[in-house]
Amino acid sequence: MAAKKYIYYFGPKGADGNAKMKDLLGGKGANLAEMCNLKIPVPSGFTISTEACVEYFDLKEKWPAGLKQEMLKNLARLEKEMGKNFGDENNPLLLSVRSGSRASMPGMMDTILNLGLNDTTIHGLIKRSGNEWFAYDSYRRFITMFSDVALGVERLQFEKALETEKNKVGVMLDTGLPLGSLKSLVEEFKKIVLAHTGSPFPQDPKVQLQVAIDAVFASWNNPRAQKYRSMYSIPATWGTAVNVQSMVFGNMGDTSGTGVAFTRDPSTGERRFFGEFLFNAQGEDVVAGIRTPLSISQMGQKLPECKKDLDKIYNNLETHYRDMLDIEFTVENEKLYMLQARVGKRTAEAALRIAVEMVSEKLITKEEAINRVQPEQLDQLLHDTIDSSANLNVLTKGLPASPGAGVGKVVFTAEEAIELAAQGEKLILVRQETSPEDIGGMNAAQGILTATGGMTSHAAVVARGMGKCCVAGAEQLKISVENGIFTVGSTAVQKGDWITLDGSTGRVIVGKAPLVKPKLSNDFHTFMSWADKFRRLKVRTNADTPHDAKIARDFGAEGIGLCRTEHMFFEGDRIVAVREMILADNDLERRGALDKLLPMQREDFIGIFKAMDGLPVTVRLLDPPLHEFLPREEEDYAVLAKDLNVSIVDLKSRASRLKEFNPMLGHRGCRLGITFPAIYDMQVRAIMEAVCHLTKQGMKVQPEIMIPLVAHHEELRILRARAVAEAEKVIEESGVRAPYTIGSMIELPRAAITADKIAMHSDFFSFGTNDLTQTTFGLSRDDSGRFLPEYVQEGILPIDPFVSIDVDGVGELVKMGVEKGRSVKPKLKIGICGEHGGEANSVAFCHKTGFDYVSCSPYRIPLARLAAAQAVIASSASKPATKKKAAGGKKVVAKKTTVVKKKAAPKKKAAVKKAKGKK
Amino acid sequence: MAAKKYIYYFGPKGADGNAKMKDLLGGKGANLAEMCNLKIPVPSGFTISTEACVEYFDLKEKWPAGLKQEMLKNLARLEKEMGKNFGDENNPLLLSVRSGSRASMPGMMDTILNLGLNDTTIHGLIKRSGNEWFAYDSYRRFITMFSDVALGVERLQFEKALETEKNKVGVMLDTGLPLGSLKSLVEEFKKIVLAHTGSPFPQDPKVQLQVAIDAVFASWNNPRAQKYRSMYSIPATWGTAVNVQSMVFGNMGDTSGTGVAFTRDPSTGERRFFGEFLFNAQGEDVVAGIRTPLSISQMGQKLPECKKDLDKIYNNLETHYRDMLDIEFTVENEKLYMLQARVGKRTAEAALRIAVEMVSEKLITKEEAINRVQPEQLDQLLHDTIDSSANLNVLTKGLPASPGAGVGKVVFTAEEAIELAAQGEKLILVRQETSPEDIGGMNAAQGILTATGGMTSHAAVVARGMGKCCVAGAEQLKISVENGIFTVGSTAVQKGDWITLDGSTGRVIVGKAPLVKPKLSNDFHTFMSWADKFRRLKVRTNADTPHDAKIARDFGAEGIGLCRTEHMFFEGDRIVAVREMILADNDLERRGALDKLLPMQREDFIGIFKAMDGLPVTVRLLDPPLHEFLPREEEDYAVLAKDLNVSIVDLKSRASRLKEFNPMLGHRGCRLGITFPAIYDMQVRAIMEAVCHLTKQGMKVQPEIMIPLVAHHEELRILRARAVAEAEKVIEESGVRAPYTIGSMIELPRAAITADKIAMHSDFFSFGTNDLTQTTFGLSRDDSGRFLPEYVQEGILPIDPFVSIDVDGVGELVKMGVEKGRSVKPKLKIGICGEHGGEANSVAFCHKTGFDYVSCSPYRIPLARLAAAQAVIASSASKPATKKKAAGGKKVVAKKTTVVKKKAAPKKKAAVKKAKGKK
Repeated sequence: MAAKKYIYYFGPKGADGNAKMKDLLGGKGANLAEMCNLKIPVPSGFTISTEACVEYFDLKEKWPAGLKQEMLKNLARLEKEMGKNFGDENNPLLLSVRSGSRASMPGMMDTILNLGLNDTTIHGLIKRSGNEWFAYDSYRRFITMFSDVALGVERLQFEKALETEKNKVGVMLDTGLPLGSLKSLVEEFKKIVLAHTGSPFPQDPKVQLQVAIDAVFASWNNPRAQKYRSMYSIPATWGTAVNVQSMVFGNMGDTSGTGVAFTRDPSTGERRFFGEFLFNAQGEDVVAGIRTPLSISQMGQKLPECKKDLDKIYNNLETHYRDMLDIEFTVENEKLYMLQARVGKRTAEAALRIAVEMVSEKLITKEEAINRVQPEQLDQLLHDTIDSSANLNVLTKGLPASPGAGVGKVVFTAEEAIELAAQGEKLILVRQETSPEDIGGMNAAQGILTATGGMTSHAAVVARGMGKCCVAGAEQLKISVENGIFTVGSTAVQKGDWITLDGSTGRVIVGKAPLVKPKLSNDFHTFMSWADKFRRLKVRTNADTPHDAKIARDFGAEGIGLCRTEHMFFEGDRIVAVREMILADNDLERRGALDKLLPMQREDFIGIFKAMDGLPVTVRLLDPPLHEFLPREEEDYAVLAKDLNVSIVDLKSRASRLKEFNPMLGHRGCRLGITFPAIYDMQVRAIMEAVCHLTKQGMKVQPEIMIPLVAHHEELRILRARAVAEAEKVIEESGVRAPYTIGSMIELPRAAITADKIAMHSDFFSFGTNDLTQTTFGLSRDDSGRFLPEYVQEGILPIDPFVSIDVDGVGELVKMGVEKGRSVKPKLKIGICGEHGGEANSVAFCHKTGFDYVSCSPYRIPLARLAAAQAVIASSASKPATKKKAAGGKKVVAKKTTVVKKKAAPKKKAAVKKAKGKK
Repeated sequence: MAAKKYIYYFGPKGADGNAKMKDLLGGKGANLAEMCNLKIPVPSGFTISTEACVEYFDLKEKWPAGLKQEMLKNLARLEKEMGKNFGDENNPLLLSVRSGSRASMPGMMDTILNLGLNDTTIHGLIKRSGNEWFAYDSYRRFITMFSDVALGVERLQFEKALETEKNKVGVMLDTGLPLGSLKSLVEEFKKIVLAHTGSPFPQDPKVQLQVAIDAVFASWNNPRAQKYRSMYSIPATWGTAVNVQSMVFGNMGDTSGTGVAFTRDPSTGERRFFGEFLFNAQGEDVVAGIRTPLSISQMGQKLPECKKDLDKIYNNLETHYRDMLDIEFTVENEKLYMLQARVGKRTAEAALRIAVEMVSEKLITKEEAINRVQPEQLDQLLHDTIDSSANLNVLTKGLPASPGAGVGKVVFTAEEAIELAAQGEKLILVRQETSPEDIGGMNAAQGILTATGGMTSHAAVVARGMGKCCVAGAEQLKISVENGIFTVGSTAVQKGDWITLDGSTGRVIVGKAPLVKPKLSNDFHTFMSWADKFRRLKVRTNADTPHDAKIARDFGAEGIGLCRTEHMFFEGDRIVAVREMILADNDLERRGALDKLLPMQREDFIGIFKAMDGLPVTVRLLDPPLHEFLPREEEDYAVLAKDLNVSIVDLKSRASRLKEFNPMLGHRGCRLGITFPAIYDMQVRAIMEAVCHLTKQGMKVQPEIMIPLVAHHEELRILRARAVAEAEKVIEESGVRAPYTIGSMIELPRAAITADKIAMHSDFFSFGTNDLTQTTFGLSRDDSGRFLPEYVQEGILPIDPFVSIDVDGVGELVKMGVEKGRSVKPKLKIGICGEHGGEANSVAFCHKTGFDYVSCSPYRIPLARLAAAQAVIASSASKPATKKKAAGGKKVVAKKTTVVKKKAAPKKKAAVKKAKGKK
């Protein structure tokens, strides 16, 4: 076997690698190689591959055989090219050593600059630069970084000494320190190293280099990096590459400096070169944030030639990469060097604008444009957000359960929320957890905060449906409803106090944070119209009211995939009739209550059908366990007892019989339809009366009646027959022939397994992947909060299966359901109405599995439209192997986007500082 | 198309049908044909096929084309053969019309005798019989039966008139009525018919016949029959045959009579001809029960020739059918006619003895013998039963949750049960439902009665495990624990009152019923040893204590398939330590509690391993949600608070955090192992310390450590690694190398679907089909009581899926799990430890699916051994088609057995009456 190649050289004559070799060289290494190939000035150097890192760990932190020789060979080549020698006391080669993995992991890993300096080579540096101050400045920086990263000496130790010295000589900035101070700091720093490590600071440059490479390898497994990887699903097996580069110095005086720029505005997407520059500085100075950087045009005034070169380079790079880039560069004595070029992170607004404009510039195709925006990013555009320049008093963090931001006064009950909202107050509803009874209050509030419950808890699901912000499961909250107070640690927040919720990050903020309103640009509409041309999947919405239906249509909904009739049951006074129905002791009592409900439900359906104006509407018959509708207050029982003419004691005893151990797996869904057939009869009648009423008026209506929680085909056969009988009765009564279809939810494993039998009685399938996930995993989403987060964090599960469909498990059942269903009815209409219908990877799964449509809450519709378009583009990519890789890569990219959302975001200075931090 | 044949003739020259044509001719028709073919005297006649019945219903209760012509043709043939004419005033042919379906449905359907009589033909009958009394007796019987069955006139009307007449003339028995009375009764009866139907009693014999046949067809769908079919899974589509036979008369005087007999004793199995006879009677007289029947030998004294014929016939029949038979016969003027011969029902004891003796008589093979005993029957042999001759005051009925009988004084709490049992009292524990805290009390009681919960509720499962009788879900019970009373309707039972439970039928009986002790005969042991030679499946037991393990071994257990460690947690004082562990706020507190538990668990395992003496023992690590162990009483909290040195308020707040919405789908099983690794560490240590301890003493131990509720292979990978680490630590400490294996429960759909990945980390699979059924159906067994019984009764589900495995749904997942698991590890050991492991059809499924073993509660082991043997015999049957039929048939037969258990049972007179009732 030929010796393995671990190291890839790059320099002015070109490089061993190129931009496509990210897996092997890491993002930074691949892009450095690419720039060399493009003859763009880059400090020469070499990249030690990720494979070397992986083998290093496999060998229990030993270098693979041959790596050292290969490194020495490359070092020699570098020395020759630079005309400098490593460790040379006259003309020393100095190096930077940086990590760089396949996925960007900003700030997570380590960098060492100025490596090769020691008590001898510093004299060479002084000689060659003619700048003793610069040389000692570099040396003290090197000792700090090397000791911190490679020797495990706390950086704080060195910063303290530096601070002491600055106080002693009375200067504010590092650059103000006299040479003598730097010299004594170097001595002081060496003493710190000796004291903390028991050994003197290593003077041999080759030892320095080897230790530094070890340290970069090791940084792959430092706790920060591990945490980051688990957060963003980056496999531990990838390893990091190590980039060893000859140093160029931005701190050589006033004709030197360092800069960061974006080829277009990362915040707005505007086509303008945009960045910042610091004279006489190395990258870390920007992080320290003591000096204020200048704009690129200010740099151009002092270094016009450099600016001209930079403009040429960035234009070349953008044309070459065909994307907006984030670049880093250093000027050493008026000579420009590129240190980094990579695809730049951007806000959703910018992503849209850049994608649309690059199409009109003919730089990219529409397919490429579609792939340039991450579906999840669109959420940013649809909701209020907190002004990112504001100073915030963050009290605690919960789960980012429903995006957007809300400001309001704290209330603790739904009743208060409704009452105060009617008086024009803005409110945040704070609950231990919410229940269907709280819906009115949730609707009245600006946002919802709960102490327990996960991303798919009641509060989260309903809030997302309403497009209302929600922070769920803020576990530090201790709520006392009686005292009208909640506490987090020692901080107390009382009823009526203002708080702000950030549903996009989960932050709970004390006081009124300033909000920024969303607006949908023309670019948005252009972009979405392209997406619509590509996609095959229809996108419907989950909506229970004409109001929601209207919002959804504005976002492009092509029908309703899930209209939950039970949500209507809580509105206004009808809950009383619902309770009478539930607590009826016999069919007569039940019938009486249902007769009261019938006209109300009919009006509901008329409203919704009208709002959807001829588009298909899937109505799910009653699903939840009946006890969800039970009264909780004494007075409610009194009202009911009077209505039903029974004693309160009797009524409570009836109610207690509805208690269930595991309501999720209890008497609900079509089991109610079987045991209390009058309920479904009433609902079918209400639907069909609405349909016939509108049909008579000449309106088109497409009702799809959906039976929930079917486990056995016999259930469906019986209920379908009853529904058809009732529907035909209504049609006959009304005298107009109106169309309708009847289908089944597939939300239990048994339904998927026996889908061929169920399809015999079904006009369509709608996969309820929330419940299907619960039963397939044996995992109640309401109870998962105590261990599921740990599961995801520890990587036991790659992702929360309630957020993105579990392809290996739940997905297998879905596939089985689709295949078996279509084996009987090849044209069976198939959709999804679980939360997954609004998540990009799940939408892609639905596309691949042959679904006809996805359905999601109104605010997720643009996301689903885009994801559906991307799924088409991904599946038409030629090679299956490439496809697979692309999909894997995409996931990580999507995650990176989240980082932008969370941290960098629009503010320009903050973004640049962040970027610099990575050097 | 040739005309369809609907009617099959039988007579002294042979028959169109034979015994194998039960599907078409029903059981009775097929056997009548068979006897004709054997030249045994049978009144000639014809059978209208079940197909005709099915078509009759398909045609909305019209006769299929051609049926009438075919009937008339056969009637003519019958007239010719009998030398009598239907409706002839001189020599009338009279007929019996009886139903007869594929499956025996005793007493469920209708029969009409003496058909053809009218005001004219009665004179012919008088002439031919020379017995006017007999003729009028027959006529009044005919009017009664025909009017009841075919005209819908209540039988009571006729009985009242008969009673009045008897009082008037002052006789006790019908046979005492003078001729004049019979004549006037006939007139009276005709008036009753006219008054109730508006038409005179039909006089045309052909009309009578057609109406009678209609009535028998219709009886297939009468409510009794429907109910019976749904109880015993008999498809409505089968239909019934109709047997039309020339009448022979047992009521022609003292040389006539009617009898029922068994070729061997149906109660003990003893080889003796055994039956009863009534002179001058028709079948229905036996049912009326006014006259006491004679024994067959008494009959022989008066009719020696008939007895001789009967002996010859029954011996021939037994040799021909090679089984014990139930026969019915009539003697008309000293001439013997057989009316019915069929395989006789028998008690378990009789079934065993007959099977074993027929093998030694070389009448049947051992394979056949094995198939002659229904596995469920064995239960009868293992438990106390209520003396069936006792008069019982049955208060209510619940589910027959655990077989056997128990007598004791009512107590309402586990504590009382324990306390009073210690004083030597016999007790029945009555609870709304039981929980793990009640185990001590359940153990102390003679039986358990609950008001809620199904066949697989906690009470049912634990009681079966203990071999203790249990009646569950007796829904009429209203319990007031505070007042020490329960009521059923207006009857109240107080603490201390005696009651008796019949766990085999679900009866709750007021007072002390006399019990009969079980004893296992030599036949039992012989028979089981044959079964063991056939079976391939190993049979293990579910046992948590050395005591249970011992019982199970006595019943033939070959290992423990499920040792639930949590059951040990409730014993004695250890619950306090368990609670400390659960409510620990940090690892230190938890560790402390676990240290207390370790030695106790180790001793548990030593006991169990010793009891199993080298056989494999599968120990399941902690599975249930922790809150099951929480205290319920204030004083328990006080004890804990002191132990843990925290406030009661704090403790309660910790406890309340453990509350779950759906505990079944919550924080349990291996999720506990992941989040609280110290618990599993302790358990693995306890197991391995026990193993090493015994290994050191030279004992063989085969521990199998089982991880519950695995959903994702990563869980298992992590927990396996931890378990191996702990086990190896113990092995190293102890200095002996002890073997152990680590495997996974497969009890969630996701585990079955991803079994290939899970198998990578598993030495064995154990299917937990209880939980797998719950999740596959989305059906909590604890909550299913409100609709599952209705589902089964209405035939929506063919059978309760918690009782017998749902082959189409759950079974598909099991198959998938087995196939995927073995695709990775072809020799993967696979077992089942759910309740299904002790149910015959499920055991057969496990055999077919390639399991290595089944595991069930100790008292189910003989059943499982037998079912496993029968599965081998069934699968080695040659033709797949035949196999299928056999299996389908078996199910029904199994059900019939239950009837024997429930009603007929040993008492001879009762059995005979029952049998007569069917005529």
